[in-house]
Amino acid sequence: MNSMDHMFNAKSVAVIGASGKPEKTGHVILKNIIDGGFRGGIYPINPKEEKILGYKCYKSVTDVPGDVDLIVVVVPARFVPKVMEEAGLKKVKGSVIISGGFREVGNVELEEQVVGTARKYGIRIIGPNCQGFNYTPNRLCATWPLITKKGPIAVISQSGTAGATLEMLAEDEQLGVSAFVALGNKSDVSEIDLIDYFSKDTETRVISLYIEGVKDGPRFMEIAKKAAQTKPVVVLKPGRTEKGKKAAESHTKSIGGMDQIFDGVCKQLGIVRANDLTEFYDYSKALGFLKKPKGNNMLIATSSGGCGIIATDTAEECGINIVDLQDSLRKRLKEILPDQCVISNPLDLTGDATAQRYRDAMEIAIEDPNIDIFMLIFGDPIPGAFEVVKELKSKTDKPIVISYLGGGQTEHEETEKMHKNGIPVFPTPERAVRAMKAILSVKTTS
Amino acid sequence: MNSMDHMFNAKSVAVIGASGKPEKTGHVILKNIIDGGFRGGIYPINPKEEKILGYKCYKSVTDVPGDVDLIVVVVPARFVPKVMEEAGLKKVKGSVIISGGFREVGNVELEEQVVGTARKYGIRIIGPNCQGFNYTPNRLCATWPLITKKGPIAVISQSGTAGATLEMLAEDEQLGVSAFVALGNKSDVSEIDLIDYFSKDTETRVISLYIEGVKDGPRFMEIAKKAAQTKPVVVLKPGRTEKGKKAAESHTKSIGGMDQIFDGVCKQLGIVRANDLTEFYDYSKALGFLKKPKGNNMLIATSSGGCGIIATDTAEECGINIVDLQDSLRKRLKEILPDQCVISNPLDLTGDATAQRYRDAMEIAIEDPNIDIFMLIFGDPIPGAFEVVKELKSKTDKPIVISYLGGGQTEHEETEKMHKNGIPVFPTPERAVRAMKAILSVKTTS
Repeated sequence: MNSMDHMFNAKSVAVIGASGKPEKTGHVILKNIIDGGFRGGIYPINPKEEKILGYKCYKSVTDVPGDVDLIVVVVPARFVPKVMEEAGLKKVKGSVIISGGFREVGNVELEEQVVGTARKYGIRIIGPNCQGFNYTPNRLCATWPLITKKGPIAVISQSGTAGATLEMLAEDEQLGVSAFVALGNKSDVSEIDLIDYFSKDTETRVISLYIEGVKDGPRFMEIAKKAAQTKPVVVLKPGRTEKGKKAAESHTKSIGGMDQIFDGVCKQLGIVRANDLTEFYDYSKALGFLKKPKGNNMLIATSSGGCGIIATDTAEECGINIVDLQDSLRKRLKEILPDQCVISNPLDLTGDATAQRYRDAMEIAIEDPNIDIFMLIFGDPIPGAFEVVKELKSKTDKPIVISYLGGGQTEHEETEKMHKNGIPVFPTPERAVRAMKAILSVKTTS
Repeated sequence: MNSMDHMFNAKSVAVIGASGKPEKTGHVILKNIIDGGFRGGIYPINPKEEKILGYKCYKSVTDVPGDVDLIVVVVPARFVPKVMEEAGLKKVKGSVIISGGFREVGNVELEEQVVGTARKYGIRIIGPNCQGFNYTPNRLCATWPLITKKGPIAVISQSGTAGATLEMLAEDEQLGVSAFVALGNKSDVSEIDLIDYFSKDTETRVISLYIEGVKDGPRFMEIAKKAAQTKPVVVLKPGRTEKGKKAAESHTKSIGGMDQIFDGVCKQLGIVRANDLTEFYDYSKALGFLKKPKGNNMLIATSSGGCGIIATDTAEECGINIVDLQDSLRKRLKEILPDQCVISNPLDLTGDATAQRYRDAMEIAIEDPNIDIFMLIFGDPIPGAFEVVKELKSKTDKPIVISYLGGGQTEHEETEKMHKNGIPVFPTPERAVRAMKAILSVKTTS
């Protein structure tokens, strides 16, 4: 186990500043660790309480009978040096300092004192001034809101909210995350350490990074480049405009630098840059579940003519080729499809298309060596859509990207089935196509 | 009542080709009319059935005892001329022909025959080859999926799926639509008639149009310009790329024309052009519920520093001014807010912000004459957010645009309360800001 492992895979955790009052962070954190299903030792630390949420309280971490791997700290900043000293005596391995009141408000010395003590005892620090972390494989939700669904996305975020948003979207869609780590002041653990860690974490297939600036540019580039060669890295970095940059500086004292340079660096390293939170999630979702195709020739099959046009426009704008169908494929499709279908690309199966019609068409199309990517648009209530996609996935390694929309209750049901089976569904054709563009731009998918 | 009123506000409706088989369109349509709560006469027409879904069947529309204002036709194309003749004898006022098999597959004469008969009797036609219509004020859902929530958005769409998607999004968010009309082959009723109709419909506050092409350019411009002076018009028109244009031509035989020219026309007419389905919904939602501000000076108040930066970037890129706070406002905010807050724009209320902190800050800010638009970002589980927004709305006519994200279950609850009270909430700051840009570009909001 390396020092980061001790935190994410901690076997016991103490909440320093646990509280019995539901509105307090020290309550929420403890409750989320409990409700998240953490299977190790849970120790609330609060000198004034006997029990919180059914768990025995201790006056200090040094009073805990067994080992404590991790402390989650929510007491006011001025008490943190003493907490860290006690943690050292207790041989704690890692700490998450949620409390603010350090460097971000000018208390640089206090932060340095805490870091010095932690270094002395070999304790790693996430934070201070952060929203904690969540590591679903260990069912350890030492943050908020409560997120439990395990999935392939590791979120590293300098904004608690941006990270929590990604977690929530993935949880609501039942796709899940492997981890969320808030960076806070990065007094010890930085985005660089975390990119390195999650690039080796077998539970993670995509690393999603929200940053406002990096401390050590050359090392960031070195580690990010290495990571991107093993699994996709997606980054959202605001501060594109002058006023945005100024706001970033006052938020986390980050120096964002020239945005165009960062953009160039991303391209060079093979990192995908998302332009907004929607893309940030969509790209993470796509890269967590779909493989990189061999080429960029796409076939669109759709029950909605309109959505086929929308997808075509977006693909053309993204540099994805809506490939002309070869005569042999055209002929075979014509034989089996009803007259009203438009045998072209997009392949318009028309408004009365059933799941069976998709199956018939796709079983033929999937053999075509000239097609690298399949896009299925279900633009109506089409029961059985999930079964068709599942069958097709078993017959090909080529990526199948799905958009399901306008389908009422059936859409909700079919989408849920797909998501539960790790098949990402996008709410519009444009978002599906742009996610595919992101996949085409990475060095590798895992 | 004009001829369109007779359709949307029909007092009785017959479904020609109603079916007892749940998978048939003739079943789904009848079921949706019933389940949608239509309060007028409902008459299934099917010569082979006695009763469908508890309603007595008739062999022909001429056998129905009372008046029939509207027929919804789902029988095969070849039977439609006879159906229209019988409808004429019955003095039916309007028809929706869902059946395909007309002009779109080359049966131009058959379509012209049907139109001729309808003209003879003064019957209006929506379609053929369309997904029907929904008019929520009359609880008349003669389409699919079943959508019942009444709201301010009238959707006119050449793509059934694009229209249904907008309806579904509005229903899922409990914001609702006034109408959805599928255009199909536009043999009689066109987007021009519908824009004109909904521009006068008091139940509609925004007209949302998906088109692949227009038949009569000059008249479209005349009517759209007039409509845009009374209420906002949002348009989504794909066919921006060569391949997209080609797909549009094979879908609805539309001649999309030069995309740049259409873009210029939109600007000239004061029509908002959406670039994708996400914007199409976001703009419709914003324009259905928010008023146009007097200027473009925006204040952002946020609990998430990161999201404040994201919003600032997007605003700058959209030409919305993140206004510098005047000294007097700065001073008053400093007096009442805790030290860790960043008294600037974005105004960072920081991660431990409560609803009360938003209330305290905004009650001061809302009086500032230099601010035209307020953007509130709730980036955490902040209970009571809805109450604050409600109070602020009662104190000012200036638009308040909301984004709520990363807030777990509390976010879902607060967002639902806002939506139920007609306060649109956007899932990301970028989408909220872009929606505000759309509002700034219209001639008027109603």
